[in-house]
Formats: sequence, structure tokens, C-alpha cells
Amino acid sequence: MRIYILVAVLFLTITHSIAQENITGFASMNAAKQLELEKQFDLMVSTSNQDTWMKFLTSRPHHVGSVQGKANAEYMANLFKQWGYDTEIAMYDVLFPSPKSRLLELLGDKPYKAKLEETAVKEDKTSGQKAEQLPSYNAYSADGDVTAELVFVNRGVPADYEVLERIGIDVKGKIVIAKYGGSWRGIKPKVAAEHGAIGCIIYSDPKDDGYVEGDVYPKGPFRPQQGVQRGSVMDMPVYPGDPTTPDYASTKDVKRLAREDVKTIMKIPVLPISYEDALPLLTSLSGEVVPDSWKGGLPITYHVGPSVAKVRLALKFNWDIKTLYNVIAKMKGEKYPDEWVIRGNHHDGWVNGASDPISGMVAEMEEARIIGELSKKGFKPQRTLVFCAWDGEEPSLLGSTEWVEDHAVELKQKAVAYLNSDGNSRGYVGFGGSHALELFFNEVARDVKDPETGVSVAERRYAKMLVDADRGSVSKIIGQKNFKIEALGSGSDFSPFFQHLGIPSANIGYGGEGDGGEYHSIYDSYDHFIRFKDPGFQYGSALAKTAGRSMLRLANADVLPFDYATLVNTIAGYVAELKAGIDQMRVETNAENKLIKEGFFDLAKDPQHSLANPQIKESVPFLDFSKLDNAMTQVEATSTVLTSLLHQSLVLDPIKMQLLNSVLFHAEQQLLDEKGLPRRPWYKHMIYAPGFYTGYGVKTIPGVREGIEQRNWKEAQGYIEVVAASILNFNQALQKGVAAFK
Amino acid sequence: MRIYILVAVLFLTITHSIAQENITGFASMNAAKQLELEKQFDLMVSTSNQDTWMKFLTSRPHHVGSVQGKANAEYMANLFKQWGYDTEIAMYDVLFPSPKSRLLELLGDKPYKAKLEETAVKEDKTSGQKAEQLPSYNAYSADGDVTAELVFVNRGVPADYEVLERIGIDVKGKIVIAKYGGSWRGIKPKVAAEHGAIGCIIYSDPKDDGYVEGDVYPKGPFRPQQGVQRGSVMDMPVYPGDPTTPDYASTKDVKRLAREDVKTIMKIPVLPISYEDALPLLTSLSGEVVPDSWKGGLPITYHVGPSVAKVRLALKFNWDIKTLYNVIAKMKGEKYPDEWVIRGNHHDGWVNGASDPISGMVAEMEEARIIGELSKKGFKPQRTLVFCAWDGEEPSLLGSTEWVEDHAVELKQKAVAYLNSDGNSRGYVGFGGSHALELFFNEVARDVKDPETGVSVAERRYAKMLVDADRGSVSKIIGQKNFKIEALGSGSDFSPFFQHLGIPSANIGYGGEGDGGEYHSIYDSYDHFIRFKDPGFQYGSALAKTAGRSMLRLANADVLPFDYATLVNTIAGYVAELKAGIDQMRVETNAENKLIKEGFFDLAKDPQHSLANPQIKESVPFLDFSKLDNAMTQVEATSTVLTSLLHQSLVLDPIKMQLLNSVLFHAEQQLLDEKGLPRRPWYKHMIYAPGFYTGYGVKTIPGVREGIEQRNWKEAQGYIEVVAASILNFNQALQKGVAAFK
Repeated sequence: MRIYILVAVLFLTITHSIAQENITGFASMNAAKQLELEKQFDLMVSTSNQDTWMKFLTSRPHHVGSVQGKANAEYMANLFKQWGYDTEIAMYDVLFPSPKSRLLELLGDKPYKAKLEETAVKEDKTSGQKAEQLPSYNAYSADGDVTAELVFVNRGVPADYEVLERIGIDVKGKIVIAKYGGSWRGIKPKVAAEHGAIGCIIYSDPKDDGYVEGDVYPKGPFRPQQGVQRGSVMDMPVYPGDPTTPDYASTKDVKRLAREDVKTIMKIPVLPISYEDALPLLTSLSGEVVPDSWKGGLPITYHVGPSVAKVRLALKFNWDIKTLYNVIAKMKGEKYPDEWVIRGNHHDGWVNGASDPISGMVAEMEEARIIGELSKKGFKPQRTLVFCAWDGEEPSLLGSTEWVEDHAVELKQKAVAYLNSDGNSRGYVGFGGSHALELFFNEVARDVKDPETGVSVAERRYAKMLVDADRGSVSKIIGQKNFKIEALGSGSDFSPFFQHLGIPSANIGYGGEGDGGEYHSIYDSYDHFIRFKDPGFQYGSALAKTAGRSMLRLANADVLPFDYATLVNTIAGYVAELKAGIDQMRVETNAENKLIKEGFFDLAKDPQHSLANPQIKESVPFLDFSKLDNAMTQVEATSTVLTSLLHQSLVLDPIKMQLLNSVLFHAEQQLLDEKGLPRRPWYKHMIYAPGFYTGYGVKTIPGVREGIEQRNWKEAQGYIEVVAASILNFNQALQKGVAAFK
Repeated sequence: MRIYILVAVLFLTITHSIAQENITGFASMNAAKQLELEKQFDLMVSTSNQDTWMKFLTSRPHHVGSVQGKANAEYMANLFKQWGYDTEIAMYDVLFPSPKSRLLELLGDKPYKAKLEETAVKEDKTSGQKAEQLPSYNAYSADGDVTAELVFVNRGVPADYEVLERIGIDVKGKIVIAKYGGSWRGIKPKVAAEHGAIGCIIYSDPKDDGYVEGDVYPKGPFRPQQGVQRGSVMDMPVYPGDPTTPDYASTKDVKRLAREDVKTIMKIPVLPISYEDALPLLTSLSGEVVPDSWKGGLPITYHVGPSVAKVRLALKFNWDIKTLYNVIAKMKGEKYPDEWVIRGNHHDGWVNGASDPISGMVAEMEEARIIGELSKKGFKPQRTLVFCAWDGEEPSLLGSTEWVEDHAVELKQKAVAYLNSDGNSRGYVGFGGSHALELFFNEVARDVKDPETGVSVAERRYAKMLVDADRGSVSKIIGQKNFKIEALGSGSDFSPFFQHLGIPSANIGYGGEGDGGEYHSIYDSYDHFIRFKDPGFQYGSALAKTAGRSMLRLANADVLPFDYATLVNTIAGYVAELKAGIDQMRVETNAENKLIKEGFFDLAKDPQHSLANPQIKESVPFLDFSKLDNAMTQVEATSTVLTSLLHQSLVLDPIKMQLLNSVLFHAEQQLLDEKGLPRRPWYKHMIYAPGFYTGYGVKTIPGVREGIEQRNWKEAQGYIEVVAASILNFNQALQKGVAAFK
């Protein structure tokens, strides 16, 4: 166990011995106080509040611009005020399209007109609120009316088009149909348009979240045949937030890009459909049978197409500017009012949005309520606490991004960390984010009890990892008590904080026992949630205890518990991965080129199926990693020294303490590069970004990794140097931390 | 390249130099003659003969005891006679049950009576021969009329019951429904009965050979919704052949076991059904959702059951003794008439049986025809050729087993090798069998041209292997010009020759481009075959060239081309596998026991799903492999010396030559142990056997391997010693080969 002993009580120079109960970053006397505080906090957590709030917040559809959305913001703002927070509703005006008309039909001999309608079920009270529901659609699709043959493109990612090319299928001038999953949904129409497709249909295959996974709603939690996943297809990996105001806030009278100049709006019409509507379309396809990994769960033979009959897709949208309502509630820190610990979850949903997002929102509210109650009893946080409820996350992190862009300068000065959640269900605790917080979250998870087993949530997570592990590797991992946290891509409101500003961020949530197929449909309701996701809100309470405890520790720590040795070690792992990756790519490219050139593909193929050889690929050069290696050597040394200094019992005066803390929470910002990533300057973090062709999925050291993946050697080489420079800046920041001990 | 130079022309003592064209085992002068012979052979191969014969042989259903079955035997016998063979029809009387009545129904609220009927299709001329078709059934099912709840058991192998036990499902007193595949079908009712089930239904899931794989018949080759896989469920891994005459031939008036004393007949009623009939049954199941790997391709959520409604399965059979008709055609060897090279394929089918078995049968007939024609022009084989057409393979290798048991003593003296086929289609050449023949088949495959590409079938096979390989491993395998042949389990007529008598055997066939779902259904017809399996019989001709060339080389070789260094090397690989396997089992057992004992399973599980912990398993001891290791050391040395002697240019007198040949073709018989394998003494080969719980799938060094797998340490240890003794016997045989050179 790793323990910092830091004494910071005025000029007292007493070195404390190691206490029985310690928390990293707390002097032992303060640790005892903190643990007592957390104990009180835990005792105050109520499931019935969460239930009451969820009932209200999900009572009607509450998407951006809806009556209920505004009412929800006001409801929460009132509560935060009652709890003693300095609360405001921060409004921004954003471009938010909604459908004016939708038509999808299969022409030809066996015509079919898609229903495009989810059916209300009597077991679900809110599923019949038709007048207020947003129809099923993909926000930021283009307007369009196209008629063409249909082609099935699997997940619709670049690798799928390589397969189609070998089969001899060109999607130019065609409409494509893709399965949900395997990438952020916006990747599918983007890549389709890059290949010349003129329309894109996305459907939920029953193998992914329908009957193949389990019984469908209302019998079970999975997607029924009419269920449709709504969602944004904005090109979020380029930049999130209001598409007409990249890099700056979309306040009332701000100058906006004309819609035709916006690069993140899709170029072709895109529509999500149910598997009931997909079945006749997929059945109409002829051509080769798809590869095994492309097959879904419908009772048909999946073919790549094209279809003999044509398909018509006609979509028109209302391109409205809507006002969104972020709730921002602050409780001033007593000692460090200009150090902000920020917590957020969004409040807008696609329809009634119980699981996504309200289940996370009500946990956050419970955290804020309890801290408010505690403060009425005399508790004062050392740092300022900021609780946020974001609007417009679903369309593309609109509320958080605009607020962050609005307050960027202040946030870069004051934000200590941003802790996000975005829904919650029964299961195992999960953390993703900055690896400087990895040990911190391990400690937090050790102090929260799992509702189902009574052990700590860290222990339960550990047990799950061991039981799921290959038995042969158990003996190697059974001693590793610390868990790794995930790297973050995108898909929630941490992105602007983390990847745009470099504020240490994390996403927290429970899951793994509440799977279902309600996502972004009318069935993500209170009724569904309390039957299948977290009956009794036991895990809502666990989330409140986990995130609330994290907030309180970051707020009250004598020395902020950032652990840069772990972050540096993690980055070193990514560098090793890149090197191994390019070496493997070289071997595989050479092997495949050899097999092509020497005729093995020609000999192996079945002449009754047209399958072209893969393309000969440019051979993979050796890149010069030396600048990055040298930078890593330096920062490894510095972070090791810093960590060992933090491990010692030591004495610092308040000024040095404040300097050290300032270094610790600003250091990660040095990993930004102001020019950002290639073709997407909004993303400035050189270690973490959403993948340009994955969307949600993270790419670590993205400038280099995506350069290699896209075989753009020059760009990869260039970014090795950019990343090395940012590592050297980061190293300098850490050196200032070391200097604080002198 | 590996070349034997052996001069054996009387007492001439001229050492020949290495010729341009060589064949292992042939003196160079003889090699040239042989190659000329093979060239003539190839030129005479006709596809139209195969087409004509297949049309006749598949014109009506030709199962054991059918009118057409007997007519086919007579048709072939006449042809063999015309071609100059000494031909007989060898008849045996065997127990062959066929259905008297079949009933399967789901009771309860939504009753369903299974159709149990395959639909004739107009595109298939023979599919409507209803009066002569055997109904869909499993031969050697028990009679029975049972009514019980239904449970889904996945593939119905022992591991599946471990999963069910954890889920809390006991099949005692229940009827089970299992998917085809994953084991020989007879394993499913055997294991079900071992667990107390009272009935067993087996169905063809569309994921395995129906619409998930491709378009269904008649549009494409795959199994339509009414298609049923017939087949035997006799406990063939105990012994094949007539169940009432284990170990001896079922000649006319032989004494037979009473039916109730036969151990290989199933104890419970078993019925195969279509996926159309399976759908209502599977839909009726409640209980937990099955694990992912159990899921099939029907548009339902697969549950383990039990069903709420009961299922009734009522089956009665005619337990008839039928006569079967093997055709045996001999051409006497000029030089070594008492050395027999044997070729076989079965002629009985479940229905019209075009792919299985006639596609292989007509290739064999074409081989025999050409050799007959050649002999009329003056060709004389050095050894005796025996061409066999087996009846009753489908029920359980009846014809071949009874004939082999009838002629066991003579075969052990005279049989040089047995070459089997059992159907054929477009694609890649495949060989399985004794590894003493591995290099021989590599040479044969290098000399046969692939019809689709014009390169050798060895090269095409090699190209396919490279293209399918993981790209990272290509550079390691690209130099390995020799391919490995497969080890053989069971499932065709090689079993009695190979595993009962120890005659070096192989199975030969092309495939990989003719996939379909016609297997054992009324759709395995001439019409299906010529559209989907091997249009134009190009691969029928390739099989004739491959097997025919193999026959001619074995018949004419100066020194038989058995390569025991490769066999020994392969056995050494199996020994290493066993040691690594038990070590891994020890590690995994310890790991799992630790996870159970320390409560990790309790912590990890979802309390809303009942999932018991796995059972604590006895820890895995260290076995004493020393006797086997010592035996392997000796035989490795001897086989290396023998191989190097065979590689040298050398001179042997005819007597020593004959001695050497006799040693070479009898050596593998030393790998038998007369007591046979545990609980199945019929299987005497200590290196190769069908798995007791896999059926078709091979278990190498089965006495030890299955002892370990079944955690019967004592038995495994005992068989290490038995195998070691057989290896020492084998070593002595090889030493006699070495001595022949002195």
C-alpha cells in the first residue's frame, strides 16, 4: 500500500508516524477526519431520493429543446439551491435538427415501406407519449432524397470496405446499410460518404442487443423488433459541441458558421431503423454471402448485395437553433476557493432517458444533496466543489462543450479534476480517464462497499477479473491488487475537459449486470430501469458513494493525490505498443505482399467466387523514435523522484504546499499541443483521443498511432516529435513539483 | 527432396546415380517406367464415366437392405468383372433397425406435432421418391415412449453438462434437445443417458449448415428448414460393425448376442429433426439464457429450459436382420501376390447418397477401370490390388468391419495398406492416417494437377494454408514444403483396418469448396451434387488420380515407401503434447480450485442469476513418463538409422528385399496392444483411436490422453506403460528392418 504522509498544519514541523487508516494526500490527522466525514456521507445516502427524482426527470421526453428538458433543469437548479449551492442555469443556443419528414422504402417486386415507428407497450407507462417523443432519427444527418441499390457494409468501418473491394462491390452511387456497433455511429455515414455512397441506413441487429442476447422488452430487457437506436452522427472525432461554433461558445448573438460550411454535419442522409424494418431490406440483397464475422442474428442468409430492387431514402430536417440549459452549482472551498473539483452528468435524453442519463444524474444529485446537508452541519470543503447537469450531451456534448469553451481560461487555471458519469446499472465498478488518477481510484474503490456482496467494490471487481481470466494466467495476476483504469475515447462530457483542455478527468460507473437493448429508444424508461437496470437503486447509491467520496477527497486533500509515475509508466506502455505495432505491421505487410506477388492468393481462391487479391501495400519503414525515447527517459526519472518524495514523511510550508498542488493539478495540461491532432485541432491532448475512425474508441498517442494505422508515415514521424516535445514540457512541470520539496 | 535409390534387379550390383525424376521406393529405371504408367493412367481418366455411374447408383434410395442397394452392388460387381478383376460379393447378415412409428409432440397450451418429413422439391428429381426413402431417424435408437419436460444441452457433450450443473439444471427424467455437431452424433444420447435423461432429440441448427451458412436448397446448397440429418447413434467408439457380433464376422448362422445384451445400442429413444420442427420446441423453453457459445441461428432467445409444457417422444423400430453386399475385386500381383494394397469406399447411402458416398465410389471405380484397361494392354501390378465397395457403412461401418473381422488373420499377413475415401467435392486435397505415409502422400500430391489452377494439388493446398495463416506466422511456415497429414479418428471404413488390425491406412478426399447442408438428407442427390459439389466431376478425376497413383506406387514399389522416422517424430510430438497438457491441467486446476476456495466465484457472480460455483477438482498429480521416454529414445534411434539406410544408394538381394518390405508393412501392427483400450478392447491401436466422448474426433495415444482428460490418473499411468511396451515391440520390428541391410 502506498501512503503519502504530509504535514501541512501551518508551520508545525512534526513528522507524523504512519497511521492505521490512511488516505493518500492526507496528513494522518486529516485522514481520520476525512474518513469520519465519508462515514457520515455513506450513512446519509438515500435510494428513495434517487427514485423520486428519476420518476420526475423521466416522466416525459426530455431532449434538447423539449418542455420537460427545461423543466428538469429548473427542477434540479431549485434543488441545488435548496441544498445551499450557488446555482445558475447556463444557457447556450445550439443548432439542433429534428425530423420534418422521413421515408424509407424498398421498391421493386416486393415493395416495403419502413414503419419507422416504435410501438408503445402497456407494461411501460411512458412508451405511449407519442406527441412528445422525438421520432427515430440520426441528428446531423443531411437532408436528402435518394434512390439507389442497397449494399450491406457490416459495421461500416474502413476495414469493411477493404473486404467489399475484394468481393468487387463498389458503393459509389449506392445506399449502404450498416449494423450498429463496432464504432461510434457517426463513423458509418462518414466512411460511406468517403466511398461515394449517397445514403446510409443503420439498424440494430438482434445479435447485438436484441433476441440473440436475451428476452426482448417487455418480457426481458433487450431490444424488441420495433426498437430503434436514435443518436447523433455528427463527426464528433473532429470536434464536439455546437457545430456552428467550433472552439468558442455559442452564446446568444455569437457569429456562427453557415450550415453549409460546417464540416461535422454528415454529407449524406442517414437513418436508424429497427430490425423489423431491416429484415425486408436485407432479404432483398443478392451477391456473395457475407464473411462469417459480418453475420447477424436475423433468420436469413446475409448477402453483401447489391439489391436488385432499389431503395428510396428521403429525409428532411428542421434545422432549428434551440436553447439548452446547463445547471451549474458551486460550493466555495474554504482554503482554496480557486481550485475547482468538478462533477458532471448530462440531463438530456433522446426520449425518456432513464438509464441514459438519469441514473447517473440522480446519483450525482444525491452526492450534492448530502454534501449540502453536511455543510449545513458545519462541513466546509477545502476546495470549491462544482456540480454540473449538462444539457445537449446526446446530440454531441453540446452543453458541456459550450460551457467549457466559454470558461476555458478560467478552467485551465482552476480546474483540479473533472469527474463524469453517464448512466449506471448493477454490476462492477469501472473507471476510465487520466492514469494520474489510477491509484486514487483504487483507494476510493477499496473504501466503498458493494451492495450485493458486502465486500469492497475493488474486491468485487478484482474477483470478477480473476474469474473471467484464462485459468492459465490466474497465478500471474492473482497478486496484482491494483486494477488498471481504462483510457478514455469519447462519448460523454469528459471530452472537452480532458482532451481539449488537459484537465485530469475520469468517467465512473457501475455495470455488467444490467445489460439490455433499451439504448436511445422509447423503452429507456423508468419502468424498464427499475425492473432490469438497478432495481432499488442500490448501485445508484454505490455510484454516489464512489463519486461523492472522490469529490470529497480531491476537495480536502492536503496534497492532491495525482500519481505521475503511474501515468508515465502507462505512457511508456503505449510507446512500447506503438513500436511493437509498427514492427508487426511490417512483418505482416511483407508477408501479405509476398503471398500476393508469388501468386498464393491466386492459387488458393475458389474460382466460383469472385474474390480479388488484396492490394499490394507500401512496405512499412522504420520510424525514428529516438526523440520520444529520450523524452520518456527524462520524464521517467523525474516522475520517479517526485513519487519517492511524495512517499516520504515530509514537512512543507503552506506556500510550498500550494505551489506543489498547483504543479500537480496543472501538469497534465503540458501534454497538450496547441496545434492539436491532424485535421482536428480541437483535440489537443497528445496521449488520449477518440479514434478518427472509431469515435468512441480511444486512440492513445493518437497522432502517432493513427498515422501508423493509416500508413501515413510522414505524419506519424512528425507526431513522434510533437509528442516528445509535449512530454518534455510535462517533464518540466514535474521538475517544478520536485523543486517544491527543496 | 528425399530420395531412396534402391537397386533390386536380381543380383546386379550396379549402384545407379540419382535420376532426374524419382519416386521414393523405386529404383530409378523402375521410377521412369512407373511415371510413364501414371501418365497413361492420367490420360485415361474420364469424367463422363463417373457421371454415368453416379446417375445409376443414386437413381433410387440405396440404404442397407434396399432393392437399389443390392442392385448397385451387382452393377458394380459386373463392371469390376468386365474390367478383369476377380470379383465377389461378400454378404453378411446384420442387425439394421428402421422406423416402425415416430411421434414427437409438444404438449401444453401451444401444442405442436413435429412434421418429421422432408419436402420434395421440383428442382430435385429424386427428392420425391417417398415410398423408398428411409424416414428421418437415428439408427440404433432404443424403442420408447417417453413424456417429460425438455432441456437444451447445446452439443450434448460432457462439458455442456458441467455448465448445466452450474446453472442448476439436472436432466434426470427429462428429454434433452441437442444441436448436431461438436461430436459424433452417438455421443449425444450416450452422454444424455449417462446423466439420467430419458429421451434425446437432435436437430440441425441453421447456424451449422442452414441459412446462416448460405442460401438453402434448392436456391443454394444449404439445409432447408425441413432438412433432417439421418444417422447412426450406435456407440461406435466402443466397437463398430454389427452390434450383435463384436470381434467376429456376422456370417449367416453365426451365434449372435441377444439385443438386450448389446452394449452399443442406445439406452434411450433418439430422434433427429429439422430446424422447422425444433423451433416450437426451443421456443417453449424457459429458464436461463444459454451461454453465448451455445447460441444457434434461429430467431429466438435460446434458453436452457426446462420447458413448462411437456414433450412426448414415441419411437418404435423394426429390429430386422438384413443382408449386406460388399463388392471385393482383386487383381493378382505378379511379383508379390500375397502383398495386398487395398482401396475402399462405401456404396450404401442414407437416401440417394450422391455426395456421401457415391462421389468417392465413382472415383474408385474409375481407378479400377483404368487399371483394368492397362492390364489388358499388358500392365501387371507387382503386388495384388484389392478394390472394395462397402455396404452398410452408414449404420456403423458394418460391411467393412464384418469383412475385416472375417479375414483378420489373412489381412494381418497380407495387407500392405488400406486407402479409403468417403465422398469428394471441389477444393483442396486432404489426407489423414498413418504418419508413416506422410512423405508418400506429399510425393503423390506433388504429381497430381489441380483442375482449377493447373498447379499440383500439393502446391494448391500449400497456397491455401499460407493464405489462411495468421500473417505474423507466414515467414515461419513459408519454407515448409511438406504438409502434415491428419490423425484419424473414426467415421469411415478405415477404422477396422487401422485401429483394429494396425494396417497402415489413410483417408483421401478433396473438399473446402463444396460446402452444403445436404448431409444425410433426401437432398444429397445427383441434382444437388452436380450443381454444388463437383460440377463436371473435375475433382472426382483428381481423386481418381490421387488414390489411383497411390495404389499403383504401393503396388509397384521396389521398397515400400513407409517412413517410420516421420511416424516416430509425430508420436514424439504427441508425447510432448500429453506432458504439456497435464502440466497445464495442473496449473488450471490449482487456479480454479483457489478461485473457488477463496470465494472469488461467490463475489463475482450476479446474484440475480443462479450460477453455482464449479466443483472443486482433485489436484493433478505428476505421472511417471519415464518408461515411455525410454522407449521413445530407443525407437527414435532405430528409426533414424533405418531412414538413413533407406536414403543411401544400396544393393539388396531379392530375399533381403522381401524381408525388408515385410518388416516395413507389418511394423505398425506392433503398435497394437491385444487388450485394447479401456472399456473398448476392439480398438487395439495404441496411437490412434476415435475419442470415447468425441466419436469422429481422434484421440492420439488414447489410453493415456483419455485417462488424463477423464482425470483417471491410475489408468493414464497404466497406459503409459502399455504404450511404452508397444513402442518397444515396434522398435524391435524396425530393428529387423535395419538388420535386413546387413
